[in-house]
Amino acid sequence: MDTALLPHLTRELGSRFFVAPEALATVATDDSGLVALPDAVFFPKTTREIVKLLRLADRYGFPVIPRGAGTGLSGGCLATGDGGVVVVTSTMDRILALDTENLIAVVEPGVVTKTLRDAAASVGLFYPPDPASLATCTLGGNAATNAGGPACVKYGVTRDYVLGLVAVLPDGDAVRAGVATRKGVVGYDLAGLFVGSEGTLGVITELTVKLIPHPREVRATAALFPDARTAVTAVAAIMASGVTPSAVELMDRACLGLVEELLPFALPGDEAALLLLEADGDPDTAARDIGRIEALCKDAGALALLPAPDAARREALWDIRRQTSTRIHESAPVYLSEDVVVPIARIPDLISELPGLGRRFGLGVFAFGHAGDGNIHVNITGGEGSRDRCASLARALIEIVLALGGTMSGEHGIGLAKKPFVAMELSPRSIALQQGIKAVFDPKGVMNPGKVLP
Amino acid sequence: MDTALLPHLTRELGSRFFVAPEALATVATDDSGLVALPDAVFFPKTTREIVKLLRLADRYGFPVIPRGAGTGLSGGCLATGDGGVVVVTSTMDRILALDTENLIAVVEPGVVTKTLRDAAASVGLFYPPDPASLATCTLGGNAATNAGGPACVKYGVTRDYVLGLVAVLPDGDAVRAGVATRKGVVGYDLAGLFVGSEGTLGVITELTVKLIPHPREVRATAALFPDARTAVTAVAAIMASGVTPSAVELMDRACLGLVEELLPFALPGDEAALLLLEADGDPDTAARDIGRIEALCKDAGALALLPAPDAARREALWDIRRQTSTRIHESAPVYLSEDVVVPIARIPDLISELPGLGRRFGLGVFAFGHAGDGNIHVNITGGEGSRDRCASLARALIEIVLALGGTMSGEHGIGLAKKPFVAMELSPRSIALQQGIKAVFDPKGVMNPGKVLP
Ligand SMILES: Cc1cc2nc3c(=O)[nH]c(=O)nc-3n(C[C@H](O)[C@H](O)[C@H](O)COP(=O)(O)OP(=O)(O)OC[C@H]3O[C@@H](n4cnc5c(N)ncnc54)[C@H](O)[C@@H]3O)c2cc1C
Ligand SMILES: Cc1cc2nc3c(=O)[nH]c(=O)nc-3n(C[C@H](O)[C@H](O)[C@H](O)COP(=O)(O)OP(=O)(O)OC[C@H]3O[C@@H](n4cnc5c(N)ncnc54)[C@H](O)[C@@H]3O)c2cc1C
Repeated sequence: MDTALLPHLTRELGSRFFVAPEALATVATDDSGLVALPDAVFFPKTTREIVKLLRLADRYGFPVIPRGAGTGLSGGCLATGDGGVVVVTSTMDRILALDTENLIAVVEPGVVTKTLRDAAASVGLFYPPDPASLATCTLGGNAATNAGGPACVKYGVTRDYVLGLVAVLPDGDAVRAGVATRKGVVGYDLAGLFVGSEGTLGVITELTVKLIPHPREVRATAALFPDARTAVTAVAAIMASGVTPSAVELMDRACLGLVEELLPFALPGDEAALLLLEADGDPDTAARDIGRIEALCKDAGALALLPAPDAARREALWDIRRQTSTRIHESAPVYLSEDVVVPIARIPDLISELPGLGRRFGLGVFAFGHAGDGNIHVNITGGEGSRDRCASLARALIEIVLALGGTMSGEHGIGLAKKPFVAMELSPRSIALQQGIKAVFDPKGVMNPGKVLP
Repeated sequence: MDTALLPHLTRELGSRFFVAPEALATVATDDSGLVALPDAVFFPKTTREIVKLLRLADRYGFPVIPRGAGTGLSGGCLATGDGGVVVVTSTMDRILALDTENLIAVVEPGVVTKTLRDAAASVGLFYPPDPASLATCTLGGNAATNAGGPACVKYGVTRDYVLGLVAVLPDGDAVRAGVATRKGVVGYDLAGLFVGSEGTLGVITELTVKLIPHPREVRATAALFPDARTAVTAVAAIMASGVTPSAVELMDRACLGLVEELLPFALPGDEAALLLLEADGDPDTAARDIGRIEALCKDAGALALLPAPDAARREALWDIRRQTSTRIHESAPVYLSEDVVVPIARIPDLISELPGLGRRFGLGVFAFGHAGDGNIHVNITGGEGSRDRCASLARALIEIVLALGGTMSGEHGIGLAKKPFVAMELSPRSIALQQGIKAVFDPKGVMNPGKVLP
């Protein structure tokens, strides 16, 4: 951007607009590992301030990059080579309404996911989307990426909970999309279009979300299998049994190797896989369902079960999953997180390709994820300077995934990191339609330019 | 359209293309009560034939109007004054895949909703969206209108089940949108944009939908209340109790008056309201939940309960609901079906306005609907020649609904019937964005022109 504008913007936007390097450094990265400095960063408190910023952007043509908590894994909230102003909505963090009669909440975009989940739970209600980052990520970021999580196998993704929203368009007009009721079909689904658009169509400044009754009890178990294929047979049997589990998480052999000392059993062979499963509902329903799930796992060939009948043991199981994530991160200086999806039945075919891929590129490959949705996080690690090699492995991985009938991203989005791959999956016409939509919302291209679409 | 083209189209499109008046008459109406003859009607069997039709439409600039079973309540599948070709997709009615391992189905658009539900149930799976028309309406029509039904209070609407689709664009290009997996966030949600777009963006020729495990048992009950306010208090209490009912249907006093002889009790006073409630799940869960629901209804002030512990008695309850619908239809020559949504807590305020509205316009007003979603079908009836008066009442109704924070349509859509009201609800900028999207997909305006958007 034309940095000669910055003094003018500082005068117009006041004390929450920063150009100092220390301020810029706080928004130079997200969890993708990419780094880029913007020219300025703005921490608005009101929709009106965002309107003001965007009227200026429209007038002077500089990029505006929306950002929530910066936990994204694809660089969607980072500046590009053109610089620009990062607008951080995490400072707009009020829950505006928690309506127990209508089972909806109205929130500012900066409310942290866990804060809403806790507030809802305190009145017996449930906001299901549960990205693993929920203690820090924001609902605005969740909506912009259509975030998912373990509970989505039973409850659906963020899109299924966003009823309406307010967004400031790239020219500074605020527009209301969707409804404030539990249903609505008037015109095109603009609210749904904003969901998953990764900050390229406007800045979300308010969200109306659907809540549901809170399940009374959660029960967990884990089951060890000789290999991923057997584990996935168990998943299919569970899904066909009439029980809908509220989490079906898979960890492959590479992941288990990182947390071996947390496991109360020795790892059998080179292909073992673990399923972490939950069932929720009334206490007796949850207990009975988890019992059935355990029986189905046994029938399918589980080598061992780790029942977790109480909260402490349940936490211990999730800790294995969380530790895996942390240890992958810590195991190497370069780290890339892919989140491909394949048809559930194809998960074993995918997993069986991974050791070979790792050897071919000389990189670590660790897979865990939401097996009940076919959404597998493939984590690639390498030494200093291996980023390009990681990207090559990612490309090879995506080729495999597409050949299996899958998609390159289930919940992390495209941002900058996966943009080079988009044309592998989407047809030229699909991309052209999307570019057309982008041009309708943002004819001057000021809103998060260079992201998502080629 | 230029009818001189018809012989050429007949030659090009073959034996399933008709211009005979008897053929046109079969597609001149839907369930909105509106009537309009197209110039031709086409019954394709393949996507390729639809591509051919649309290449011709693109070249010669005539309107193409997609139609499923014609059960729509807003005239969305009817020709307008400009005539054109109605393309009926109900002849494309194959279930292409029912994948029990991945819990998805792939269908042509003409598959009848009940056919898919039955096929899924036969393998233990569940396709939840259940419009009351499910025995005749098509999945293409359901997707185009984002259809809902009683089960949606627990399971969500059609949009929540459409994972991907193929659509033929107005220029004849077929495009794939969404995914064939249970999750995906690559680019803008084009599949979601087609859902609810009422045939204005393209002809849907294939749908990939999500299935879930089938609940083992359904239990029903009904509860009579002295008035709608008390009934809605019960709804709020149920929703806050941790039980998620799988149907919460309300009938107002006017509806009950039409089916009085089916009710095993005398109607108390002028404001009585009935709730029809279901719970599903495992047999014991369903039984316990319905017991709880009954207790909560009693606590809230129910005057009588009608438990339906077996299938026969459950059918008898639903028959009351179905008969209401039929009798409203039959009670008068002119009939308009509105399907407004208000916040659940505002339902009583809405219901209490209806008798006065009826008197003011000299028309019948009957309300029933999905109380758990706030989605109330307000049925307006009048004598011969009262259509304009019915529309005036509808406008007055929509004013009340918008003042209560609601929306004019929860599931029936806009089509032709509600188009005059759209600008009451959507802002000029929202409409302009939608017109922009329409122009991206359909720059020549051949696809279902004159519908939805002003
Ligand atoms: C340890 C870890 C675990 C994770 N687990 C999951 C998981 O299980 N599931 C999952 O889906 N993701 C997961 N993520 C990724 C990430 O947390 C999600 O993508 C989350 O939704 C991002 O929220 P955020 O507030 O951090 O957004 P940011 O990272 O700040 O931004 C993400 C995108 O949203 C846009 N954006 C943010 N706020 C707005 C706004 N107000 N208006 C418009 N656009 C906006 C940005 O421009 C950017 O494109 C994980 C990340 C980490 C680090
Ligand atoms: C007795 C009765 C009860 C009803 N109950 C409900 C209810 O509970 N919930 C509910 O939501 N609706 C209900 N409806 C309304 C109606 O059944 C739904 O709107 C249904 O989804 C329409 O399906 P259809 O196949 O009949 O579509 P049509 O009426 O033929 O068309 C409806 C719209 O979809 C478009 N369309 C159809 N097929 C395609 C295609 N292949 N590609 C692109 N566009 C297409 C048409 O252009 C039109 O705009 C009811 C109707 C009746 C008569």
